[in-house]
Amino acid sequence: MSDTRLSDPVEQPESELDEDDRLKHDFVRAVLDAVEADDTDEVRDLVEPLHPADIADLIELTPGDQRRALIAAIGDQIDGEVISELNDWVREELIDSLSPHQVASFAAELDTDDAVAIIEDMEEADQRAVLRALDPDDRAAIEEALSYPEESAGRLMQRELIAVPEHWTVGDVLDYLRGSEELQTDFWEIFVVDPGHRPVGTCHLSWILRTPRVVSIGDVMKREQTLIPVDLDQEEVALRFQKYALISAAVVDSSGRLVGMITVDDVVHIISEEAGEDILRLSGAGEGDINEPLPSTIRTRMTWLLINLGTAILAATVIAFFSGTIAKLVALSALMTIVSGMGGNAATQTMAVTVRALATNQLTTSNTWRMILREWWISIANGIALGFLMALGCQLYYHDTALSLILFAAMIINSINAGLSGVLIPIGLDRLRIDPAITSTVFVTTMTDCMGFFALLGLATLFNVH
Amino acid sequence: MSDTRLSDPVEQPESELDEDDRLKHDFVRAVLDAVEADDTDEVRDLVEPLHPADIADLIELTPGDQRRALIAAIGDQIDGEVISELNDWVREELIDSLSPHQVASFAAELDTDDAVAIIEDMEEADQRAVLRALDPDDRAAIEEALSYPEESAGRLMQRELIAVPEHWTVGDVLDYLRGSEELQTDFWEIFVVDPGHRPVGTCHLSWILRTPRVVSIGDVMKREQTLIPVDLDQEEVALRFQKYALISAAVVDSSGRLVGMITVDDVVHIISEEAGEDILRLSGAGEGDINEPLPSTIRTRMTWLLINLGTAILAATVIAFFSGTIAKLVALSALMTIVSGMGGNAATQTMAVTVRALATNQLTTSNTWRMILREWWISIANGIALGFLMALGCQLYYHDTALSLILFAAMIINSINAGLSGVLIPIGLDRLRIDPAITSTVFVTTMTDCMGFFALLGLATLFNVH
Repeated sequence: MSDTRLSDPVEQPESELDEDDRLKHDFVRAVLDAVEADDTDEVRDLVEPLHPADIADLIELTPGDQRRALIAAIGDQIDGEVISELNDWVREELIDSLSPHQVASFAAELDTDDAVAIIEDMEEADQRAVLRALDPDDRAAIEEALSYPEESAGRLMQRELIAVPEHWTVGDVLDYLRGSEELQTDFWEIFVVDPGHRPVGTCHLSWILRTPRVVSIGDVMKREQTLIPVDLDQEEVALRFQKYALISAAVVDSSGRLVGMITVDDVVHIISEEAGEDILRLSGAGEGDINEPLPSTIRTRMTWLLINLGTAILAATVIAFFSGTIAKLVALSALMTIVSGMGGNAATQTMAVTVRALATNQLTTSNTWRMILREWWISIANGIALGFLMALGCQLYYHDTALSLILFAAMIINSINAGLSGVLIPIGLDRLRIDPAITSTVFVTTMTDCMGFFALLGLATLFNVH
Repeated sequence: MSDTRLSDPVEQPESELDEDDRLKHDFVRAVLDAVEADDTDEVRDLVEPLHPADIADLIELTPGDQRRALIAAIGDQIDGEVISELNDWVREELIDSLSPHQVASFAAELDTDDAVAIIEDMEEADQRAVLRALDPDDRAAIEEALSYPEESAGRLMQRELIAVPEHWTVGDVLDYLRGSEELQTDFWEIFVVDPGHRPVGTCHLSWILRTPRVVSIGDVMKREQTLIPVDLDQEEVALRFQKYALISAAVVDSSGRLVGMITVDDVVHIISEEAGEDILRLSGAGEGDINEPLPSTIRTRMTWLLINLGTAILAATVIAFFSGTIAKLVALSALMTIVSGMGGNAATQTMAVTVRALATNQLTTSNTWRMILREWWISIANGIALGFLMALGCQLYYHDTALSLILFAAMIINSINAGLSGVLIPIGLDRLRIDPAITSTVFVTTMTDCMGFFALLGLATLFNVH
């Protein structure tokens, strides 16, 4: 695309990447050929210039049967950061092949949140072995993190942060930071705390840099700050970062004490995952991860298809019930699929919009009615327009006025049914605290299929069309 | 949910918010009642403590007919930040009601990227009027930004940034920052440039804070940095931020000169939008924005439904072609909807996974074949299992071995057809540089519907089942 033209003259160290930052096919090929040829030096030379995120990509792009050989070849080029960038499934496979001491040495390199991400999915016995191999400080930090619920702020946060008392000056802060060697993490703001270690304000680093040494930190900081309760769900954490454009935020426990910090780079992938997973859930593809082992994927998808088979059979029984009517006028068997199919399409539109609006907190009790009314009018407009078009076509083709009128009516009925199902079912499920993305499709499809068949065949039976 | 228990004792200034950070219904109600009663003081008192993002939410949650009165009441409580947080549609409506001078004064408060976001959607005459009302520096910056393509890095970046020469010391940087009053923006790293203003390295603020004054900045900075070409598409910008966990990044022009900076808070909402819009595109709901005016929404949805009507009619003609066979065995009319419906469900799963994998750069030429093979095996497994189940049920219900065998075969054929269509069509469209999220559904649905009907009815005709 056009950006390659411009990006060429820019000095980019990663020439192994295409214009979309993906590893080039030729590069992956070259690495795998070297792995195949057992040419470890060549493999290591090729991998050397890669960013940890690209090494992780390389491992993911390597077919399962060559992965172990690749990992053996690059050995210590895999560090904690590479592991924390790996896809969950691929990481699990890699971790399984390592000793607890190796895993512990990777975990020790990382901030608490990344170390927890590596360790939390391990089996309990393995987890204990890794924890034993860690030094006591790291172990305590990770054990505490593991005590919080999965997918909560407590798992996402890192303990490494800067907290200073309000009476310090900018000079005190600078001297403290220059003197403390052990703190290796990056940070973007410092937190000001009271003697009980409760946050009283926050201070972006750029504010400190712009302020003379003598000024007290209490005069630089901003008192209003967004605090994250330690057991807040990660989806809400992500929405909060997004809404208030946060770079980092203080995490507090139930007594309001500062216990950790979450930075935006740890939240970015959650935002992407949470926004992207709705499409997979609505379609019943589970996690939809292309690195998931095949049997597990088949199981997930088959479960969903089995549920849908139930609804398909239900809809088919509606048809079977009217088989006498179809026998009299076979044209109905073709037309009924259009009525139900169009209802399905319209419902999918409404459902997608509703699920997204719910997920992004745009749809609240304050505008629920407005949203339902919107869909009501949209479905009526679409139903009349498409129904008229279908009826006209039917009349021209079959020259059967009764059939055309019935088709018109059935299209409008199913369009309204589709619009209301598409908006009311996700909202209803959400009120019941059931994830609408996972469960809506089955109910909505059932509604549009059954009603589509029932409306057309029922009207045809009622008015005895043949 | 459980987090309310913990978040209560935490001092949160925003008590107008529910546990999901949404404005409470009662609060919105109270504001609207005060607006209705023309009690401007009450409205302003209620709105006073709100964060700009929440004021924007409040305006969005207000029904269209009360919005103007609300805006008139809160007046100057709406600042540039509120406007930049507003939904596009609502913002457009608001901007239309303002004079060019008012818009210009909002824009002047903001960083370039936010000012551009407000101005870029205005009509050209209005845009020119606003630009004329700006002071020359701001005008030049915004005009330059508008010269870059829509949705490119050039529109996202801000010109306000810190760039220093390599020979400066940390002390020089601190003195410079303390001395420059006019720079009001937040920043998270400073860029080190050569005399030609080309980036040579980057320096996180925390590194500067930890380093003694005498050290040269060239010894603190990191030479490898991710540069963003100014005309890179915003989706690629977002993926690059995500992949390399960036907080901010330098933007360079075609000659490699530093022209701006993008910060992660401007990218976060793009990540969310880009990840969320696939679900809306796949479903044909367009932007799917609940604030879009009704006629525009109806037009978008109807266009999609009309295209789908074409495919539904195409599938129905397959049925019509076999009407003789259906007349002989009406049971086929019920069974065919199951075969095509199950194909549609299976294809939707595969399609959702493929579209997501393409959008997140997980699917590259290096693993395309592996992905296709995966779907091949999944579709065979699902086809055999579900086909067997269906055939068994059919045999028990209809006692017709020929029909049951044909149903079994048709289910397997359509399952494989669904799996391959679901993976090959999005990949093929992507190779042709057509957005697979927008176009896949139509092709895939046509394939599964037509093949579902054709497989069952064709086999029934061929083997003369009746």
